[in-house]
Amino acid sequence: MRYELYYQPSIQGRGEFVRLPLEDAGADYVDVARDPSFGRPGIMKFLEDQSLQHPPFAPPFLKAGKLLISQTANILQFLGPRLGLVPKNEATRLWANQLQLTIADWLYEAGQTHHPIANVLYYEEQSTEGKKRGAHFAANRIPKFLGYFERILKVNIKAGDFLLGKRVAYVDLSLFQMIEGLRYAFPKTMERLEPQHPLVIALHDRIKARPRIAAYLSSPRRLAFNQQGIFRHYPEMEEE
Amino acid sequence: MRYELYYQPSIQGRGEFVRLPLEDAGADYVDVARDPSFGRPGIMKFLEDQSLQHPPFAPPFLKAGKLLISQTANILQFLGPRLGLVPKNEATRLWANQLQLTIADWLYEAGQTHHPIANVLYYEEQSTEGKKRGAHFAANRIPKFLGYFERILKVNIKAGDFLLGKRVAYVDLSLFQMIEGLRYAFPKTMERLEPQHPLVIALHDRIKARPRIAAYLSSPRRLAFNQQGIFRHYPEMEEE
Repeated sequence: MRYELYYQPSIQGRGEFVRLPLEDAGADYVDVARDPSFGRPGIMKFLEDQSLQHPPFAPPFLKAGKLLISQTANILQFLGPRLGLVPKNEATRLWANQLQLTIADWLYEAGQTHHPIANVLYYEEQSTEGKKRGAHFAANRIPKFLGYFERILKVNIKAGDFLLGKRVAYVDLSLFQMIEGLRYAFPKTMERLEPQHPLVIALHDRIKARPRIAAYLSSPRRLAFNQQGIFRHYPEMEEE
Repeated sequence: MRYELYYQPSIQGRGEFVRLPLEDAGADYVDVARDPSFGRPGIMKFLEDQSLQHPPFAPPFLKAGKLLISQTANILQFLGPRLGLVPKNEATRLWANQLQLTIADWLYEAGQTHHPIANVLYYEEQSTEGKKRGAHFAANRIPKFLGYFERILKVNIKAGDFLLGKRVAYVDLSLFQMIEGLRYAFPKTMERLEPQHPLVIALHDRIKARPRIAAYLSSPRRLAFNQQGIFRHYPEMEEE
């Protein structure tokens, strides 16, 4: 099965949460918007095609044979078993999905710091509000989410090094990406908080060292963080 | 199976998206926080219990036997097959979950209109920003989401009257609840937009007329919308 990932070509964004498991599993996939040899219809074609029975609301979406799947957590729930990145039993899959949706909420809040009023406006048009929201996010929300995942790793520590136990799962890759993004967007905050969350950081480092992930991160396929993505660095949000 | 729903006692909120399928299916459930005869540990006990292997990040959560499940879309994905509110095949379940997550995004945005800066602040402390965000939400986002669901109902109209075809599914109940909430929070906007989205409104009306839903809506179990929930009515958000 060759998967087709449809996402914006110049940011990591939500697409990165899908790229990471595909890369970690060594899956056969095309990142459609970034592959000049891919001549098939792009993102807009799908979004605008009024005859599509299951249209996506927004990218990312994944084409897998006849299936067209969107919503990041939904894509990951589909890919997880196929890439060997989630255990088989229902209780663990529900737990994985629950954690993934909590990461999705965290990611959403990270994005809202630079767009607290409207997605259609530029940051510069809402920077006063963004500074306020960013300060609250850094002071209250980052610690709350970090503490939640630290607590989970701690209480389950005998079961294994990963969120679901002995084997890596797609949620571990997403938590890795959250730490990466937050280090870019809120470096001072993370520098202060990381020592209090050693298990989360150890998990991040373990993911980063996985051979296929390490190869991906040093390849041109891994885009750099930038000021168009979900994670953006505005120093004014971390001023005291 | 007697389900236990854990949610706040005085608002519809996210809990309502779980109550509706339980009610429509005539399921045996306890709304823990609202049942004075229920002597078991409440919401806070679960949130603070450091020994819990699968702790919820926030309510609502559902106890089903030994399982403790949170994140609304995750709860619904679990309940759907058990309550006969989603078809069996994987492709349709993925599509249902995708729609549910899109409704979750819409709901999140509705809640952000009165909390654009921080959840820990009162509306009165962020009403200037809330008015701006609410105006954008009413002008751009409500029409975008309504149009998306209208488009889906239209392109699949031959398959049946509901989002997934001939039979009602949990996503139909959630879409009903979105319309209910938006009518409360943004009445002028909805009055203007509803005639352009006849299939969505017809679906809403069809859900409202279902015997068990109708009985529920006229019972004391259905809380009234109020200014503490996710949907709140601030007239200033709809001023021209």
